[in-house]
Order: sequence, then structure tokens, then C-alpha cells
Amino acid sequence: MTSRRGPFVVHGARTVYDNPWITLTDHDVSVASGRRFSYTVVGFRRRAAGVVPLHEDGTVTLVGQHRFPLDAYSWELPEGGVEPDETPLQAMQRELAEEASLAAADWRQILRLHLSNSVTDEEAFVYLALGLTPASGEPDDTEELAVRRLPFAEALAMAADGRITDSISVAALLRVHHMAVNRELPGGLNDLLAAPR
Amino acid sequence: MTSRRGPFVVHGARTVYDNPWITLTDHDVSVASGRRFSYTVVGFRRRAAGVVPLHEDGTVTLVGQHRFPLDAYSWELPEGGVEPDETPLQAMQRELAEEASLAAADWRQILRLHLSNSVTDEEAFVYLALGLTPASGEPDDTEELAVRRLPFAEALAMAADGRITDSISVAALLRVHHMAVNRELPGGLNDLLAAPR
Repeated sequence: MTSRRGPFVVHGARTVYDNPWITLTDHDVSVASGRRFSYTVVGFRRRAAGVVPLHEDGTVTLVGQHRFPLDAYSWELPEGGVEPDETPLQAMQRELAEEASLAAADWRQILRLHLSNSVTDEEAFVYLALGLTPASGEPDDTEELAVRRLPFAEALAMAADGRITDSISVAALLRVHHMAVNRELPGGLNDLLAAPR
Repeated sequence: MTSRRGPFVVHGARTVYDNPWITLTDHDVSVASGRRFSYTVVGFRRRAAGVVPLHEDGTVTLVGQHRFPLDAYSWELPEGGVEPDETPLQAMQRELAEEASLAAADWRQILRLHLSNSVTDEEAFVYLALGLTPASGEPDDTEELAVRRLPFAEALAMAADGRITDSISVAALLRVHHMAVNRELPGGLNDLLAAPR
């Protein structure tokens, strides 16, 4: 029994690893050139979500943590995994409270990303959150988070010059700048954020 | 024998899967809260690279392909993996010729990204290529690529509205727009690319 994925003919597949977060599947694949090879896909059980929490004064809230896979400290947007019983928006509302102790009146989806599409199927939903107010929330007890509120222009500069490297955060901060240049933000935020440095 | 990664104490690690592209390692980890758990990391054997090939007339060259892990067609920048004997720049110069039949006189690194840092250690280097000229090159025989040259503004709109979802491509196109707004591109390209739509 073969199946097709676009130009790929799949002759068989077997799961070679499995845990609550990822599944590895080896596919026996051939293509029109005649080449036959193994294509291993890392399947993600949870989608990812991230948010730009943008305050009325043109500041944003970032979170800092040591990222275990990189063994490096990383400043990022609030981000998290979408649980099976949540929508991406609900997950992000929960994570924004847990990680940054914030709630937001106005949520806009600003990007949809596939993070590493040659090996994984991981999908990320990215939001802009406006109308921020304090909320109570506790991070997961496996996380040790720092929280920092800084001018948007500073966060944007960090994304551009490599001080922020997390792909969701870099894309999202640049996207909000793009929205400001195109005057897609409410009121005075466009002028606050679009000014060249 | 324990070791540390920031706040994580690592009590042991074992490789649970291995192929020429990725290695899976299960780590036995504890944190200050007392929680002890397994942290599985997908280690990438090759770094990734991508390039924005920007022509003098304000057009860019994109490549299209069916991405097997997503089972979906994807328009993207020319991208590829960095072989062990290459620098990221050399890899990208090779991929630009292979995938888009282009060479470039002027290369600038514009982003460094970690694509999915809660599970993987994958790192990507992103370039802007200017001074483009035709070059000969053949794609890998496992790839079936389409090539399309279009106005930068159109590619940027595709990244913003979700027609392009590849994280490297979305971040890089937004970064080049950001550079144009800040007048960091050569000559007339700033005005060509920074115009609001």
C-alpha cells in the first residue's frame, strides 16, 4: 500500500520514538528521479503560540529563561504549547497570565509559522495583545522566568542584531514594526513604533 | 556524575535515536522546585541557512516545493543545510546557485535564529544577497523546485498574511523591510522597498 504526499510516494512508515511532546516517524519514500530514501519526520503533539504584549506607552514585556536545548539564556516573547483542550488563542491567554502576569482586552493574530519545515511539522500561532492589564498567574514549576518591560524599539533592535534569536520572537517583533509602518496599529502606537532609529 | 545547564541539574543522558540529520537525547533533569523529569532534545547535525536574493529592480527570487513533513506546498527563500565542511555563508552560496541559479556579489548576514528552542538546538543563519547574476546549478535529485521572481512588496505581503509560513522566510523578509525603513540598503532599494502598501 503506497500513498502520496505531493511528489513523494510513501511506501511505508513506522514510529521509531514517541513521548508526550514528539513522535518520530521514518517514512520509506521515493521521488520521480527514481531516488528512494528514508524521510524521518519529527511530529509535534502540541502547536506553539507566542504573543507581543504591547503596552499603550510603546513598551513590550519580554520573558527571559535558560533554554535547555541550547544551554543558553534567551530573552523572548511569552510563548507556550497549546494543550489538546485549548485553542491557540486560549493557550496564549493562559501563558500571558502565567509568564507575564498580564491580561489583554484586544487580541489579533499577526502570523502563522512553520518553524522547521524540512524536519518537523511544528506550527506556531502568533498574536499581538493590546489593552494590557495586570493579571495573576504562576509559571509552570519547571520554568524559572525573568520578566522585563522595555521600549519596543529596544526589543526590535535586539531581534535585528541577534541578542534575541528565538524565531517566533524575531518574526513577531519585525511584524509589529511592519504593521506600525503600514499604520495598522491603533492611534498613537504607529508613530511611537515606526520611527527609524 | 551530574552536570549543570543554567538552573537545570542533569543527572544523566542517553541517546534514544540517531540518523544523519538528527540525534534524540533523553536527559534526566531536576530543577530548584524539586521537580525531576525527562527532557528530550532533538539535536540537529547541520545548521540551516537562508537567503533573500534581492534584485536591483526591487524583486526577489523565491522557490516553491512540497514540504514532506507538512504535506503542503510552500513558497520560501532559497534555504539549505550547512554541510560539515562548509561555513553557513559557503552553504548558502552553493544553495543559491543550486536552487535559484544565481550568484551574488554582496552578501550580508541579517539574522541569526534558533528555530524551535524548547525542543531542538537548530540554528539558522540568514543572509541578504545583492548584486545578483545568473549562475549554473542543479538542485538535489530529491527536490522538485519551482522558481519565481516577484516584487519584494508582494513577497512581504505573502509573509504578513500567511501565504508564506516558513519561519526563516517570514523573519528574513520582514527584516529586509525593516532595513529599508531604516535606510540600511544600498541606494534606491530603500525607497523601492519601504513604501507602505
